Amino acid sequence: MTLTGELLIGGERRFGTNGEIKGVNPASGETLEPAFGGATKADVDAAAALAQEAFASYRALPYETRATFLEAIAEHIEAIGDDLIVRVMAETGLPRARLEGERGRTTGQLRLFASVLRDGGFLEARIDPALPERKPLPRPDLRLRNVPLGPVAVFGASNFPLAFSVAGGDTASALAAGCPVIVKAHPAHPGTSELMGRAIQAAVASVGLHPGVFSLIHDSGYEVSQALVADPRVKAAGFTGSRRGGLALAAIAQGRPEPIPFYAEMSSINPVILLPAALAARGPAIAEGFVGALTLGAGQFCTNPGLILAIDGPELTAFVEAAGKAVEAAPAAVMLTPGICQAFAHGVAALNDAPEVTTVARGLTGVGHTGQAALFSVSGADFLANPHLHEEVFGAASIVVRAADQAQLEKVIAAIEGQLTIAIHMDEADHGLAGDLLPALELKAGRILVNGFGTGVEVAHAMVHGGPFPSTSDGRTTSVGSLAIARFLRPVSYQNLPEALLPAELKTDNPLGVVRRVDGKIG
Amino acid sequence: MTLTGELLIGGERRFGTNGEIKGVNPASGETLEPAFGGATKADVDAAAALAQEAFASYRALPYETRATFLEAIAEHIEAIGDDLIVRVMAETGLPRARLEGERGRTTGQLRLFASVLRDGGFLEARIDPALPERKPLPRPDLRLRNVPLGPVAVFGASNFPLAFSVAGGDTASALAAGCPVIVKAHPAHPGTSELMGRAIQAAVASVGLHPGVFSLIHDSGYEVSQALVADPRVKAAGFTGSRRGGLALAAIAQGRPEPIPFYAEMSSINPVILLPAALAARGPAIAEGFVGALTLGAGQFCTNPGLILAIDGPELTAFVEAAGKAVEAAPAAVMLTPGICQAFAHGVAALNDAPEVTTVARGLTGVGHTGQAALFSVSGADFLANPHLHEEVFGAASIVVRAADQAQLEKVIAAIEGQLTIAIHMDEADHGLAGDLLPALELKAGRILVNGFGTGVEVAHAMVHGGPFPSTSDGRTTSVGSLAIARFLRPVSYQNLPEALLPAELKTDNPLGVVRRVDGKIG
Repeated sequence: MTLTGELLIGGERRFGTNGEIKGVNPASGETLEPAFGGATKADVDAAAALAQEAFASYRALPYETRATFLEAIAEHIEAIGDDLIVRVMAETGLPRARLEGERGRTTGQLRLFASVLRDGGFLEARIDPALPERKPLPRPDLRLRNVPLGPVAVFGASNFPLAFSVAGGDTASALAAGCPVIVKAHPAHPGTSELMGRAIQAAVASVGLHPGVFSLIHDSGYEVSQALVADPRVKAAGFTGSRRGGLALAAIAQGRPEPIPFYAEMSSINPVILLPAALAARGPAIAEGFVGALTLGAGQFCTNPGLILAIDGPELTAFVEAAGKAVEAAPAAVMLTPGICQAFAHGVAALNDAPEVTTVARGLTGVGHTGQAALFSVSGADFLANPHLHEEVFGAASIVVRAADQAQLEKVIAAIEGQLTIAIHMDEADHGLAGDLLPALELKAGRILVNGFGTGVEVAHAMVHGGPFPSTSDGRTTSVGSLAIARFLRPVSYQNLPEALLPAELKTDNPLGVVRRVDGKIG
Repeated sequence: MTLTGELLIGGERRFGTNGEIKGVNPASGETLEPAFGGATKADVDAAAALAQEAFASYRALPYETRATFLEAIAEHIEAIGDDLIVRVMAETGLPRARLEGERGRTTGQLRLFASVLRDGGFLEARIDPALPERKPLPRPDLRLRNVPLGPVAVFGASNFPLAFSVAGGDTASALAAGCPVIVKAHPAHPGTSELMGRAIQAAVASVGLHPGVFSLIHDSGYEVSQALVADPRVKAAGFTGSRRGGLALAAIAQGRPEPIPFYAEMSSINPVILLPAALAARGPAIAEGFVGALTLGAGQFCTNPGLILAIDGPELTAFVEAAGKAVEAAPAAVMLTPGICQAFAHGVAALNDAPEVTTVARGLTGVGHTGQAALFSVSGADFLANPHLHEEVFGAASIVVRAADQAQLEKVIAAIEGQLTIAIHMDEADHGLAGDLLPALELKAGRILVNGFGTGVEVAHAMVHGGPFPSTSDGRTTSVGSLAIARFLRPVSYQNLPEALLPAELKTDNPLGVVRRVDGKIG
């Protein structure tokens, strides 16, 4: 498929006139063709107008048609074939196997949401039948279901060019909810974005939907993103990126005449807690697993383990030694962009220069935009006294916090900010301590995992990829898994609406066969 | 029960030292004893510290104990007996029958949430069992449930001194969710607040809970409210009141180092749409019902019908005439506070003076702090051209919008802000038009009701008392009905957590018997 560098505005393609963006191969430094035209505010306006226009017919579709559409997107992505993988590799420096896996995850997500649509549980249908004889007042007939919010803006992430980008989780869940989507492509992978966008555009056409259901715009600055979040026709937004970027857009979303939900996934250091029995029994094995997770994908995962917490002692020393050796053997890895590589180097240098921090080990050096893994350690007291150590350094860097005792470990847990994940390594003898810690961990993270690392995020029904601030801007939600659709829905109650006018999912004979709560009981 | 005017800080009572507040009988203008001491920031700090301390044990309680606690609150409220009704009447000017009904609704709400706790559906429990043989990677065991957010601040509402105040819906749903509550009493009914607060305090003691589960503070200004929302230990807040007050506190909630959910119910004019066949068949009867709803409780309902929308013609003229006559016969009614009465008079005067607005009728005049009902009319074109007419005038005032045709009616619907309720009066011949309008109405309101008025809000499973901005600050939620508990919960996913450490609702043998979604299927 030949890239054109065009914006996709509804069913149209046109070359943006607001500057040009080119991909860069981070491995070679080579600039990639073609140029992608940047969008103007007029393009944002056009996309928003089309999205609003499309919303009426799109949300009125039978859920089965919406499911078919999501499946068609998956098929069109698969039809791109190896051209997609080749382009993503060139734009991101990520290896083929990882990207093939990520493509499977992306199409799997779309198909999961198709099944969610067929299941109907996302509608949260409830019926309280009328009680005309009730005293002192009769009860009216009340029926509730979820409806979509309206057009959604999605901001592509740099670190998951497929699964968290143009046709990624935010787009899939918003489209499933019944919301048209306008994607602002991440400027680090514009060609990947065009390929994925054209797959969605093709699916829109093949299913015969209003073309305004999907638009894709390019921009390397802030103005277009800001205009998109400020547009009154946009009713929610999904974002994965930096804390600074997320907070800036969140402020725009909240400051609008009509504020909107803004779902930003921003910053998480994903503590890994090593409990004593597990540490004593298999510290070196855990260290090996840890360094594997730390350096996976050059450490560029939202769920990268950036913090190790344990009670100090010879077992922790042995763990640190083993982890240090593994880090020293870790090859330098190409990072996603020159900017990310530079920010990583600065973050690591700051830790290296911090007087309270000990540099345990550095990985191998490389050439070009590569990151050199880093492991540090600090005492629990110094960690507590230096909140700058609690902040994310995006990339393969981690700090071991040596707590003096359990009380200090608990203080450290209480001091850290909200997280996407917290991992605990434990053996059966640790269960008592783990049980003591769990309530505090539940308040800090969206996912608690045992004897593993957070870097694999299963797309499932019971997954939460979210967490208290600042890991996300709204810890009541998840951006991965079937529950992600809830971000783009709100409940509406219908009182005494005639049967003929009820939506299918609320009609008395339940023609869609969805799960409903009738008089408070699931049935 | 003798009122003491004290703050309730955890299990303690002490007289606040930051100024004094006294209730005023709005019917007589009489100042009511005793004086209530205003809280200092130190009192807020003490209440927040106790709430945080109580949170650990409170959320760990068996759900059955939490249910028993809610029932105990209801019993302690009932045990106050007629002293409660007498005091609320004195502080609010509301009639006995209304307050007895509101008390029943308040205790009913508490008992509803007790049943929600026993049902367990609010936990949204999900299990995706491990798939150790899956290729290329095994699936871990994933289990999800909702956990409480933490201590919640509740701001009592002036217009529902029982059902939306100290032991009202926000408090009941937050306590049900597992969150300790700190209530800031509305200064218009401090004695009512003390009585209700002492009932909760007594229930805390009788069930043997940590006393920090509940605190009640008094304040007539803004400082204490602001300190409460800004306190880092407070993790969510519920508010019912003015748009200005709600937005000011919402800005504080969002501007914290850790932003928190702020659920404000603010402003709604609750349009009533009269479709042609219904208008022709029974316009005068609808007019009578409308004026009854308009003047109920001096129009001081969040769901008061402030707007009538219809296509102009002789039937609408007949409706307006009938409604005007009914308004002219409506007695003046005591309003909740002198300030509310004054604001109502100003709002009505502004409508009366607006050149584009016709004053159809005024109700009877009264003495003291009474509101004189008012009915206005305006053309659809003038309504569209004057957004100030879209704003709420709190009290018994309503505007009839005479749309030139269906197209203009649709423009008017598109132009209004988000609403708690929209009512449609229709006959069978109107179903076609109603079906055309419904999609737009769903985007504007949390509840759509047919052939009635929004003023009765059923406490039920399928109720939504919420809606798009500015009717509330978060249209994804409801503040009435069993779904209200969701405001104070967030999901947590547990990955490979040993069976022994799982919470009861996620243990494999489901000892609590809660509804769960296993591998995506309800079972």
